[in-house]
Amino acid sequence: MTELRIGMIGYGFMGRAHTNAYKRVSDFFPELKYKPVLQAVCGRNKENATAFANQWGYASVETDYNALLSRDDIDAVDICVPNDRHREIALAAAAKGKMILCEKPLAMDTTQAEEMADAVDKAGVANTVWYNYRRVPAVSLAKALVDSGKLGRIYHYRSNFLQDWCISEDVPQGGASTWRLEAASAGSGVTGDLLAHCIDTALWLNGGVANVTAMTETFVKERTHAETGKKEPVGIDDACAFLCRFKNGSLGVFESTRYACGHKALYTFEINGADASIRWDLHDLHRLEYFDHDDEGRVRGWRSIHVTDHGGDHPYMERWWVPGLQIGYEHSFVHQLADFLAALEKNAPCSPTFRDAVETQKVCDAVLKSAAARSWETV
Amino acid sequence: MTELRIGMIGYGFMGRAHTNAYKRVSDFFPELKYKPVLQAVCGRNKENATAFANQWGYASVETDYNALLSRDDIDAVDICVPNDRHREIALAAAAKGKMILCEKPLAMDTTQAEEMADAVDKAGVANTVWYNYRRVPAVSLAKALVDSGKLGRIYHYRSNFLQDWCISEDVPQGGASTWRLEAASAGSGVTGDLLAHCIDTALWLNGGVANVTAMTETFVKERTHAETGKKEPVGIDDACAFLCRFKNGSLGVFESTRYACGHKALYTFEINGADASIRWDLHDLHRLEYFDHDDEGRVRGWRSIHVTDHGGDHPYMERWWVPGLQIGYEHSFVHQLADFLAALEKNAPCSPTFRDAVETQKVCDAVLKSAAARSWETV
Amino acid sequence: MTELRIGMIGYGFMGRAHTNAYKRVSDFFPELKYKPVLQAVCGRNKENATAFANQWGYASVETDYNALLSRDDIDAVDICVPNDRHREIALAAAAKGKMILCEKPLAMDTTQAEEMADAVDKAGVANTVWYNYRRVPAVSLAKALVDSGKLGRIYHYRSNFLQDWCISEDVPQGGASTWRLEAASAGSGVTGDLLAHCIDTALWLNGGVANVTAMTETFVKERTHAETGKKEPVGIDDACAFLCRFKNGSLGVFESTRYACGHKALYTFEINGADASIRWDLHDLHRLEYFDHDDEGRVRGWRSIHVTDHGGDHPYMERWWVPGLQIGYEHSFVHQLADFLAALEKNAPCSPTFRDAVETQKVCDAVLKSAAARSWETV
Amino acid sequence: MTELRIGMIGYGFMGRAHTNAYKRVSDFFPELKYKPVLQAVCGRNKENATAFANQWGYASVETDYNALLSRDDIDAVDICVPNDRHREIALAAAAKGKMILCEKPLAMDTTQAEEMADAVDKAGVANTVWYNYRRVPAVSLAKALVDSGKLGRIYHYRSNFLQDWCISEDVPQGGASTWRLEAASAGSGVTGDLLAHCIDTALWLNGGVANVTAMTETFVKERTHAETGKKEPVGIDDACAFLCRFKNGSLGVFESTRYACGHKALYTFEINGADASIRWDLHDLHRLEYFDHDDEGRVRGWRSIHVTDHGGDHPYMERWWVPGLQIGYEHSFVHQLADFLAALEKNAPCSPTFRDAVETQKVCDAVLKSAAARSWETV
Repeated sequence: MTELRIGMIGYGFMGRAHTNAYKRVSDFFPELKYKPVLQAVCGRNKENATAFANQWGYASVETDYNALLSRDDIDAVDICVPNDRHREIALAAAAKGKMILCEKPLAMDTTQAEEMADAVDKAGVANTVWYNYRRVPAVSLAKALVDSGKLGRIYHYRSNFLQDWCISEDVPQGGASTWRLEAASAGSGVTGDLLAHCIDTALWLNGGVANVTAMTETFVKERTHAETGKKEPVGIDDACAFLCRFKNGSLGVFESTRYACGHKALYTFEINGADASIRWDLHDLHRLEYFDHDDEGRVRGWRSIHVTDHGGDHPYMERWWVPGLQIGYEHSFVHQLADFLAALEKNAPCSPTFRDAVETQKVCDAVLKSAAARSWETV
Repeated sequence: MTELRIGMIGYGFMGRAHTNAYKRVSDFFPELKYKPVLQAVCGRNKENATAFANQWGYASVETDYNALLSRDDIDAVDICVPNDRHREIALAAAAKGKMILCEKPLAMDTTQAEEMADAVDKAGVANTVWYNYRRVPAVSLAKALVDSGKLGRIYHYRSNFLQDWCISEDVPQGGASTWRLEAASAGSGVTGDLLAHCIDTALWLNGGVANVTAMTETFVKERTHAETGKKEPVGIDDACAFLCRFKNGSLGVFESTRYACGHKALYTFEINGADASIRWDLHDLHRLEYFDHDDEGRVRGWRSIHVTDHGGDHPYMERWWVPGLQIGYEHSFVHQLADFLAALEKNAPCSPTFRDAVETQKVCDAVLKSAAARSWETV
Repeated sequence: MTELRIGMIGYGFMGRAHTNAYKRVSDFFPELKYKPVLQAVCGRNKENATAFANQWGYASVETDYNALLSRDDIDAVDICVPNDRHREIALAAAAKGKMILCEKPLAMDTTQAEEMADAVDKAGVANTVWYNYRRVPAVSLAKALVDSGKLGRIYHYRSNFLQDWCISEDVPQGGASTWRLEAASAGSGVTGDLLAHCIDTALWLNGGVANVTAMTETFVKERTHAETGKKEPVGIDDACAFLCRFKNGSLGVFESTRYACGHKALYTFEINGADASIRWDLHDLHRLEYFDHDDEGRVRGWRSIHVTDHGGDHPYMERWWVPGLQIGYEHSFVHQLADFLAALEKNAPCSPTFRDAVETQKVCDAVLKSAAARSWETV
Repeated sequence: MTELRIGMIGYGFMGRAHTNAYKRVSDFFPELKYKPVLQAVCGRNKENATAFANQWGYASVETDYNALLSRDDIDAVDICVPNDRHREIALAAAAKGKMILCEKPLAMDTTQAEEMADAVDKAGVANTVWYNYRRVPAVSLAKALVDSGKLGRIYHYRSNFLQDWCISEDVPQGGASTWRLEAASAGSGVTGDLLAHCIDTALWLNGGVANVTAMTETFVKERTHAETGKKEPVGIDDACAFLCRFKNGSLGVFESTRYACGHKALYTFEINGADASIRWDLHDLHRLEYFDHDDEGRVRGWRSIHVTDHGGDHPYMERWWVPGLQIGYEHSFVHQLADFLAALEKNAPCSPTFRDAVETQKVCDAVLKSAAARSWETV
């Protein structure tokens, strides 16, 4: 058994989710050689960082990420800060030879992302990007079905990520809780925050995107800045939709918004193949719906698969409870971490790597460019 | 082509639904030899009966059912009056050699039902009871699946019929619209009105019932009588539930009420067999849900079959529109009528006959007896 | 009571559906002054037209539409032939002063549509286009909710029409059954056949469209022609998706295909407003889903409204059975016809008129132009 | 901060679930004074117990529960062994002054349960029974709605717990994994294992049960014993259904089985009140369905509440992630433990206590007695 000493940079929503994964993974994947250890958390506000360390059990606190990266007792860093700071930290961490687990989106744009991917590849450090939804068991099952060829030639891919928390004009921008609404910190709005998930999954399930046409909208033009208290223009996209052609000839339709009243985090996708179709919905994350045209005609219908079975049928589920009993959203991080640790034992990459995430970034960039130029853009 | 001249007795909700069937059947089942003709409608109130005749196109009006039965130009009578008058009319009609299509429940009790079944059998007249739900395409498909042996040994049958229109104490009893709440007219409450449907379907799908234990309740003890305007005790059961053992060894659980807030006419059933299960719900009547244990493990799930396909896959549906497009509740009557007319050509019985309906009556009687005696009763 | 003598031109799927409406409407809307009479059906194949007339009860048969239009005993014509013949017949009918009920899409393109709208307006004849889905009770309820202002400022509109019947390459094009796959007869593929429905509903519920960007695809490049038996290039769009901006500032995403395995006729729409959202699905056509942000927080959720209530709550439903019991797809035609007849009494237009349908045509044209030019197009 | 040193007795499925709760509770409820510490696990097989201790982090291992109970460094014991051993361990633990957290059902019968409740009350030790489903957020919300009076007078309660894992005759009885099928270890079958959950929730939500009539069935009469390898008669109930009257006048229908093909752990309940209804389903455990008759008529429908909101709307959810993101089955144990620890600070009981659980036991006993005697039984 080998300790994997974690240095966590940032401690917001994602910091909590990742920390939970570090604390759970050995309970449910006891065969793994590497055992994460909560060595240090790093945040600029010492008081808050210390409170987080105390609550979650980090052994130490740093307020400067360079100090953290200089420590010999840190094997891997987890980057959970706003998007605009991913690049500098990742480059520094790679230079220090640390493994890196980076929150998505990897970067502000493709240029940054490629620089970061080059850096980790050059440094030869293990790396992964927290596109966690790949490891929801129902989504992993979807991947297995696609890979097994059950769907046949793919005609259509459609995916949405719909939220409604920005409808009120009183939601501020900037600051620790709402930096996702500030262009300087987040880069983009729903494109990088939500569509990036949809795109990552799509590339994984359906291959590369050839070209796109997109539109974006900012419905609320000004929001108070959480730190300055002043009204400032909103620079991010509140909503984004795009059409695309995949390299395999299938058509894609994607939409994301934070103004879809009634939807909290409705990430969905559907794939229509010549022989079968599948669809999934984050709000009922254990259900995979599957339609198999080969079923006998009179009993053909969409199957609602409750992805909780054992016996190898349903990915990851044997690690948890008994059939019929669900696990939560946060377990997707546990699974990704388990896969990362298993890959480490074999010196293998853990997808999505930084290099994989560059592809998602390219699509995001093409989408934003298309929306601005009102033209089709090649990815 | 032969005219089948109909004499309709009663013209309430069911009179309308049956009349609609007589007017539609030849459009959608043009190959049938017999074509219904709306010869006469019979009702005690001449003005109302005439208005009904004018609206729907009946050629004549009678105010005395004996006068109707004495006419030579009537081939078949349809009995749509309150339950307490089924027996006398059916016996008289059989004596006159008329075919009889009788609204359910067939009678007030088993004794009456057997007398009526004896009468039609002795007279040799074609007869059927309007347990129309058998001919909802999804329910007919359920029957085909059971008969094909797909379910294997049956363990469980459960069925509900839940409504909520009686929660208000202001709903009256008696009279043309609410005779179903008056014991003298209806015989029983939900048992004869709603559970009779559940039982008819169950006997058809799962065979005979051996014994039962039941409970009934009358939540609102007094209701104003629609005709007298006076508060009178309520004699019918507002709710009824029973457990039973079927002759095939399976267990049954049935429940009906008019006090289930939120349910308008939620007739459901589910059958669990060793190899497969099915369930159905009147509120989404084109959906049959089906679970097949033989499906490959990782993609095993409840299938939501939209029972609208052609090519022989889905009963009756080829007669209507195109796949994906639904038909309504009232089409179940059209189907039963088409089957009745087709059977007539072959001198065959059209299930459920009066004799078949006696079996449902026996279960209803045992249920009511059990509820009164607080004991298990043999059917 | 006044007879409205119908001359039906064409007798395919839509001819049947419209005929059914003419035969039902007086039963369920007895107060209407106008009673449709099936005066004549017109088709080039006399044998087939006669068979149709016999089955459905048309009094006479014509094989030349000019002969039909010349008859004094025809008040209104119903145009149910392939799209490429709508214009000539409508112009001739208007010239003869006949009322016109025309199947959708109104025309092959906007130019034709405007010519037709001008003609009926000039002739002063009553007219309507069979965009029947407006009169599905749940869709009519959606309109009432939008009009009442319950949704507030609209942010998003999304709509799909997904089918799967063209996946097999063996489906032919052209001929009586599959003219919808032949460009010469149909004009376009899913755009005119399916998206036109989505667009008509969208314009009705959400107002005009400002501009669009679209993509189309023809997955199967050649199909055997049903009449020649020869392989011919496929000229229609198998799939089409477009993004748009509505004039009210909301964003639209539309998609249609005949290659979505598992969907038979899945017409759906969803509208997200600042205060409430609604969505609907043709496969469960009596359900309207509604989310009201004003509901108390802890019990806020999407409501599944079973649109079958009486008391004025649910449009049209009081005409039919009792709460909880559904009606079918074809009843939407009965409702549109009833509204047409009621409008006739008041000399009022019955929406969608030819003029209304021009707007849908304009959007279709912009969509097809955008797909060809790979550019945003103004409507 | 005070350590609460846990001695876990047994380490099967429930041992894992409870241990997980002890390890998580302080992360998500950091304000609690008591912090559980995994002091010892006790099991008769030293090797297995040691493996469990190593995987989960217990500090020590015992093979004799008396040795465990004699240790001064154990504050609370958690009883996770088969049902037949609950009583002896609980009595010994109480005698030693240990707090007790006992897996359900509390005992083999009411006599045992009362003895155990008397013992903990006499000893004055904190105690709770792991009827964990009360703390699923959607179920806790149901309780809040009932308590707020939103449902009005209650008419109906129905609840099922359906599984399918026993259909195969090859499933053995007895032993570590399948002791639930052996009468000597489990006492009863689905009654104590599954219906006990339904009954506990029902008593909590709807008050006491007055009387019952029940039926049970053992479909597979013999199963191989996992330890002896010999076929032995099956003494437990494979299925059980019962009708009851609650003390508040409402009617109850309950059913449980392990032979419902297609259902893994389908625990459901529905309550119909005069003003509103609610229903819930373990397979989609974050959804609470709610129907409020007071909603405006035209938009009245079952609401699907995704119980993941913050701001105090949804019980426990603020502790976890963000709205729309689910937690898992096992979090119900974390919540019960948090409530237990919070109650400890205030010297208050944590429901359900042993005394509360006696009431569930009484209903189970009446059900089994009724099934055997084929008679109504008073609870």
